[in-house]
Amino acid sequence: MIRAYYLPPAGKPSATLTEQEQILEVFRRKEGLLWVDVEAGTEDELALLGEGFALHPVVVEMCREVTSQPLVHDYDDYLFMVIHAVDFERQAEAVMTLEVDVFWGRNFVLTYHRDPIRTISEVRDRCGQNGGVLLSRGSDFFMHALVDRIIDNFTPTLDRIDDLIEEVEQQIFRQPTDAVLKRALDLKRTVAYLWRVATAQRDVVGRIVRGEFPQIKKQALAYWRDAYDHLVRMVQSAENQRDLIAAARDTYLSVVSNRMNEVMKVLTIIATIFIPVTFVAGVYGMNFEWMPELKQPWGYPAVLGVMALVALGMLWFFRRRKWI
Amino acid sequence: MIRAYYLPPAGKPSATLTEQEQILEVFRRKEGLLWVDVEAGTEDELALLGEGFALHPVVVEMCREVTSQPLVHDYDDYLFMVIHAVDFERQAEAVMTLEVDVFWGRNFVLTYHRDPIRTISEVRDRCGQNGGVLLSRGSDFFMHALVDRIIDNFTPTLDRIDDLIEEVEQQIFRQPTDAVLKRALDLKRTVAYLWRVATAQRDVVGRIVRGEFPQIKKQALAYWRDAYDHLVRMVQSAENQRDLIAAARDTYLSVVSNRMNEVMKVLTIIATIFIPVTFVAGVYGMNFEWMPELKQPWGYPAVLGVMALVALGMLWFFRRRKWI
Amino acid sequence: MIRAYYLPPAGKPSATLTEQEQILEVFRRKEGLLWVDVEAGTEDELALLGEGFALHPVVVEMCREVTSQPLVHDYDDYLFMVIHAVDFERQAEAVMTLEVDVFWGRNFVLTYHRDPIRTISEVRDRCGQNGGVLLSRGSDFFMHALVDRIIDNFTPTLDRIDDLIEEVEQQIFRQPTDAVLKRALDLKRTVAYLWRVATAQRDVVGRIVRGEFPQIKKQALAYWRDAYDHLVRMVQSAENQRDLIAAARDTYLSVVSNRMNEVMKVLTIIATIFIPVTFVAGVYGMNFEWMPELKQPWGYPAVLGVMALVALGMLWFFRRRKWI
Amino acid sequence: MIRAYYLPPAGKPSATLTEQEQILEVFRRKEGLLWVDVEAGTEDELALLGEGFALHPVVVEMCREVTSQPLVHDYDDYLFMVIHAVDFERQAEAVMTLEVDVFWGRNFVLTYHRDPIRTISEVRDRCGQNGGVLLSRGSDFFMHALVDRIIDNFTPTLDRIDDLIEEVEQQIFRQPTDAVLKRALDLKRTVAYLWRVATAQRDVVGRIVRGEFPQIKKQALAYWRDAYDHLVRMVQSAENQRDLIAAARDTYLSVVSNRMNEVMKVLTIIATIFIPVTFVAGVYGMNFEWMPELKQPWGYPAVLGVMALVALGMLWFFRRRKWI
Amino acid sequence: MIRAYYLPPAGKPSATLTEQEQILEVFRRKEGLLWVDVEAGTEDELALLGEGFALHPVVVEMCREVTSQPLVHDYDDYLFMVIHAVDFERQAEAVMTLEVDVFWGRNFVLTYHRDPIRTISEVRDRCGQNGGVLLSRGSDFFMHALVDRIIDNFTPTLDRIDDLIEEVEQQIFRQPTDAVLKRALDLKRTVAYLWRVATAQRDVVGRIVRGEFPQIKKQALAYWRDAYDHLVRMVQSAENQRDLIAAARDTYLSVVSNRMNEVMKVLTIIATIFIPVTFVAGVYGMNFEWMPELKQPWGYPAVLGVMALVALGMLWFFRRRKWI
Repeated sequence: MIRAYYLPPAGKPSATLTEQEQILEVFRRKEGLLWVDVEAGTEDELALLGEGFALHPVVVEMCREVTSQPLVHDYDDYLFMVIHAVDFERQAEAVMTLEVDVFWGRNFVLTYHRDPIRTISEVRDRCGQNGGVLLSRGSDFFMHALVDRIIDNFTPTLDRIDDLIEEVEQQIFRQPTDAVLKRALDLKRTVAYLWRVATAQRDVVGRIVRGEFPQIKKQALAYWRDAYDHLVRMVQSAENQRDLIAAARDTYLSVVSNRMNEVMKVLTIIATIFIPVTFVAGVYGMNFEWMPELKQPWGYPAVLGVMALVALGMLWFFRRRKWI
Repeated sequence: MIRAYYLPPAGKPSATLTEQEQILEVFRRKEGLLWVDVEAGTEDELALLGEGFALHPVVVEMCREVTSQPLVHDYDDYLFMVIHAVDFERQAEAVMTLEVDVFWGRNFVLTYHRDPIRTISEVRDRCGQNGGVLLSRGSDFFMHALVDRIIDNFTPTLDRIDDLIEEVEQQIFRQPTDAVLKRALDLKRTVAYLWRVATAQRDVVGRIVRGEFPQIKKQALAYWRDAYDHLVRMVQSAENQRDLIAAARDTYLSVVSNRMNEVMKVLTIIATIFIPVTFVAGVYGMNFEWMPELKQPWGYPAVLGVMALVALGMLWFFRRRKWI
Repeated sequence: MIRAYYLPPAGKPSATLTEQEQILEVFRRKEGLLWVDVEAGTEDELALLGEGFALHPVVVEMCREVTSQPLVHDYDDYLFMVIHAVDFERQAEAVMTLEVDVFWGRNFVLTYHRDPIRTISEVRDRCGQNGGVLLSRGSDFFMHALVDRIIDNFTPTLDRIDDLIEEVEQQIFRQPTDAVLKRALDLKRTVAYLWRVATAQRDVVGRIVRGEFPQIKKQALAYWRDAYDHLVRMVQSAENQRDLIAAARDTYLSVVSNRMNEVMKVLTIIATIFIPVTFVAGVYGMNFEWMPELKQPWGYPAVLGVMALVALGMLWFFRRRKWI
Repeated sequence: MIRAYYLPPAGKPSATLTEQEQILEVFRRKEGLLWVDVEAGTEDELALLGEGFALHPVVVEMCREVTSQPLVHDYDDYLFMVIHAVDFERQAEAVMTLEVDVFWGRNFVLTYHRDPIRTISEVRDRCGQNGGVLLSRGSDFFMHALVDRIIDNFTPTLDRIDDLIEEVEQQIFRQPTDAVLKRALDLKRTVAYLWRVATAQRDVVGRIVRGEFPQIKKQALAYWRDAYDHLVRMVQSAENQRDLIAAARDTYLSVVSNRMNEVMKVLTIIATIFIPVTFVAGVYGMNFEWMPELKQPWGYPAVLGVMALVALGMLWFFRRRKWI
Repeated sequence: MIRAYYLPPAGKPSATLTEQEQILEVFRRKEGLLWVDVEAGTEDELALLGEGFALHPVVVEMCREVTSQPLVHDYDDYLFMVIHAVDFERQAEAVMTLEVDVFWGRNFVLTYHRDPIRTISEVRDRCGQNGGVLLSRGSDFFMHALVDRIIDNFTPTLDRIDDLIEEVEQQIFRQPTDAVLKRALDLKRTVAYLWRVATAQRDVVGRIVRGEFPQIKKQALAYWRDAYDHLVRMVQSAENQRDLIAAARDTYLSVVSNRMNEVMKVLTIIATIFIPVTFVAGVYGMNFEWMPELKQPWGYPAVLGVMALVALGMLWFFRRRKWI
């Protein structure tokens, strides 16, 4: 599905275009700013992109495939960027990335994406209503507006992961089970994935900020620099989360060790108190004919006393070792 | 709340300004040195900053937001810096950072911060009393004085954390519990946070020291270099603390393992001594009619002797294994 | 076994050559594009390569040896590349690499490999049928086609390893045994090996992409850049897999600890309930003459009651500790 | 306490100076080579340094403070260096560093240190006796002689730490206790500290070797390069020691695990042999009236035989599992 | 012991020199190529090196000392290199390095080594027989031949270590004892040492390959590049071995944990089956007068039945938990 928004130069009113012919005609004028958004494009629409906009066959091929990594390539007439929008799936506790392929020339911006992306829908709505504002400062400012909104979408995802990590940490101290461990492992995977995407995105924006692409006006760079700082902070957040999850797993091991230590102590205390006295009882349960103690009236109380002494001795030993 | 201090050029006396009109009038003269400090600024005051001092809309926006990372951007007429003051909260055992946004031109310094910051209050007091001294050597020397004091504030925080780490280490050897583990985990988080802030601060000052900003006079650089060395040492301290906490956690595991080993040994010694002799007692507690030993007068002492032999044999075995 | 394909310049039809004389004669013309593929070359054929094509003795020597690392060297007249095809051995769960030595000049490409390689066989078939297409755009485009296919072969191997890692993870949670551990260790080795090969391959292609070799036309670089991005992603996949295996091993330790904790709890619960009551039974099994309780009709039920109380007290203690 | 040694140019005899007036007078001549050593300087002596030798106030301030990090700053007329001598405290098993602040101009070298340092005392003695030799080749050669001796002092410290690590390793295998663990932790701290000092020292000398300071004659650089290589090897030694200590701690965990495994096996073998046979004895200790086996003459030997069989079966089971 | 081989220019026959006078005379001609090999040199011979060949006193001093690190320094007239030959001591399972100090000028190569080195002896033999071949292409080719042979000696050592690692791995799965752990620790040390030597050697050759020394002819660089690739692969092998040993140690911990888990399960199963039934036997071993069950003929079989039920219940519980 192709939708296009066009702002002609010199203050003329903006227009929403839907006909392919019309779009290509406007594209060929090479003035003003044209934004073409292709959502879930058919093979025909892809072919149109390639031929109508004279794009390099390699990049049209890349639109067809899933590209797991943000990147930016310079094709003299336009830049080709792959950026990723991020979405957090609440139930699966997993992060989903949505690829956006962008062709970005002086007088046109072309976005191609498989799935509907909320951020782009919003920008489309704003363009439909008062496109003049967003498109009026040129393609580099428009691109910044688009990318900045996509980047901002990372923040709630990172916040949600922060919450999850805290949850897992508390579970570890409350009840360390295999299930918690599995959850931590899944979180680790999610954060690693997010980190990879954010790092690559940062590098892409970093190349823009360093002024590597002369197409971008110097005035626009201040805005891109802001987006870059934003991404740097996100990458750091992800790294921090990675450390926290690693620490959580270490804590898990420690907590389990600690619990086992507790369990062992209880077992040891009970066993070492009762095993010796049970032995004494066993001795006087023997059926030898000649066991003189058995005949004495003081035998029974004396044995009970010995048992109490043994038990108290053990307790004293444990207290000295600080076990109880 | 806006407060301003102004030192005119050519030895005229310094003045404390409070009226916005007056401040802007002085700002427009572009001579001497004007310091404007905005604490917990209202929206109106922020708007004044933007318009009155002709600041870039991006940086005014950054004043409004919380910026988790120190940074420095160059806007020809002025530098925009974000630095962080550090405060250690004794009860929560956590570090709190307070953001200061600084605009720093040839003839003016503009500081913006949400919360009152002790260091800045002190500088304000000194300026109110004898502003001439601090402001007299130009904005780069004044900035150094300000930043250096903020950096110095890190030291007591790092020292306090050193103490806490030592406390945790001693607790680990004395009594390794989940609570100690949790405390180490919190400390780890605090140190990681401090490290991130100090690193970013170091990078910001590092860019100044490398002479990246021609606004700063060469004579002032020697002072900034001192501040830079200071920050390098702080970053190293934080890295060292990180290592120490990691080592503490490892030690925790080892100590717990060691304790469990001790507990196991006691259990094993008691159990392996008494289980066999209890078995012997059990044998002679059986009620078979034909058990000839039971009839012999030497039966009872002989069995007691066998039991003693078994127990001594076990003890010998443990001593050979160096368990006792 | 030597096979050669030749496309003369200026639209003349391509030819398949088999005679060594013929191949050398065509080589000396230095026009069009000649591809010579040597599979499992004999010493004679190697000598032919060295002399007939005037190759440096060092590189002919390197053809003879196994080179564990992809590389590219520039010999003015030609580039010498070592690249590796990858094959996954299903039964051994191991990765096998097949070395291809490539000499790559303006008018010729010479490939040398010990074992038959599926990718190269396919290209050979295509050249035999309609060589004109693949050879028609010059040696740099032809090389890209060859290398790209070899790189694409990595993907199924990486996918298969992903599956294996998931299998191992599930086994760890279901039944953590030495065998699973050994399997994880073998996987780790495989991934480390793959990572080394992919990294070296990436560096080789990276040098091409950076335009280090003027022999390669600028138009071809866009295609090579695509191959480079592909390799970057593969290296990242391998790194990710490495992290996952490391995490799996850590998980293994945690799961085993957890299991042991479970086992210990069951043992402790059973033992601490029955050891004290068994002791009580032992006491009243003693044969002292004077044990007044034994004579009372309420003695037996009272003792049973005491035993039940002790057992219930233990159970209450365990529940309070959240063990059951 | 100030001591000074002066070698005038053109072969005149060297002199030992003690009067401040005299020293300053010689300093102002700016010829020959003057070495002033200030040990445990008073505030007055520090003031003299600042004014008399026209030093930058920042560096005089740094002499007053403790600087935890070697560094070198260039002040046109002189270099300011902070280097650290190292001393190993045998009893505390800790490393102590002694700071030396050095001002190093064409015609003078000024050393400032709080504590007496053996190396400097030795150089002072040599200067007092035949100062001509050490001072005769200019300040850069003299500085090299001084720094080289200070660096050489690291070696015995590193050797001593090597011995300590080996001791700890042996203790771990012999008797892994908390005390050994604590000792390893302290060693780790010591090595980390030494590493930081050596690394910073290496970087300082590295900047000299790279010819960053034109004050140093090219002929002298060969000597400095030797000192640099020396420091590089020291840093590597410290890194190696760090790895060894980390490995020792890991080994500790393994050894403790292994010991616990041994203990558990003994417990398990004893318990699983005697628990079943004790049960059998318990059965025939029951007082039921109708237990026909008890009446048979073969009952007792038969039960003993069953017990022996059970015990042997258990032993066979353990041997099959390779536990004994 | 000094031995020298000389190949005069312009096709004259090579000569073996033994007299010091003769050697120095040939050295002063500065034509052809002279190789002087000093093995286990006396102080006199060292002095001859210094004076006769006009070497820098610093490097003569370095010949006297043991230099733990390969390095290369440029002294205009000659290069000074320290390289290390490697030898694997089969019994100690340790690596021994033998230092070779090389002075390498346009018309002479001077090697100094303390111990006899097999590689150098071989080169000496070849020079004695047909020195013309090895010396005929100039000092840079001769040096390559020498260094290449020394590097090749690393390979069997690395292979032997690979075997040892595999041995250790198998031992860990078969029988994880302290002795295996100690062996792994020693191997780790050996590999770390080898890695350090190989890395430094690689860096030395790397500087040659980058063309840092104009003394070396461009044609010779292709050969040096081959040696460099060789060293890069060795460093990677050593890194790989390091990872394998680290993994082996981790595996050790896991295997020990696993074994302990097994032991615990057996103990728990036996104990939890017999402890309850032993208690029941104990109850009916009590000597109360009023225990009506004891009088019943069905008492004994009923109790046996209850015991069997308890045991079967326990077994069912263990099977449900997948312990047996």
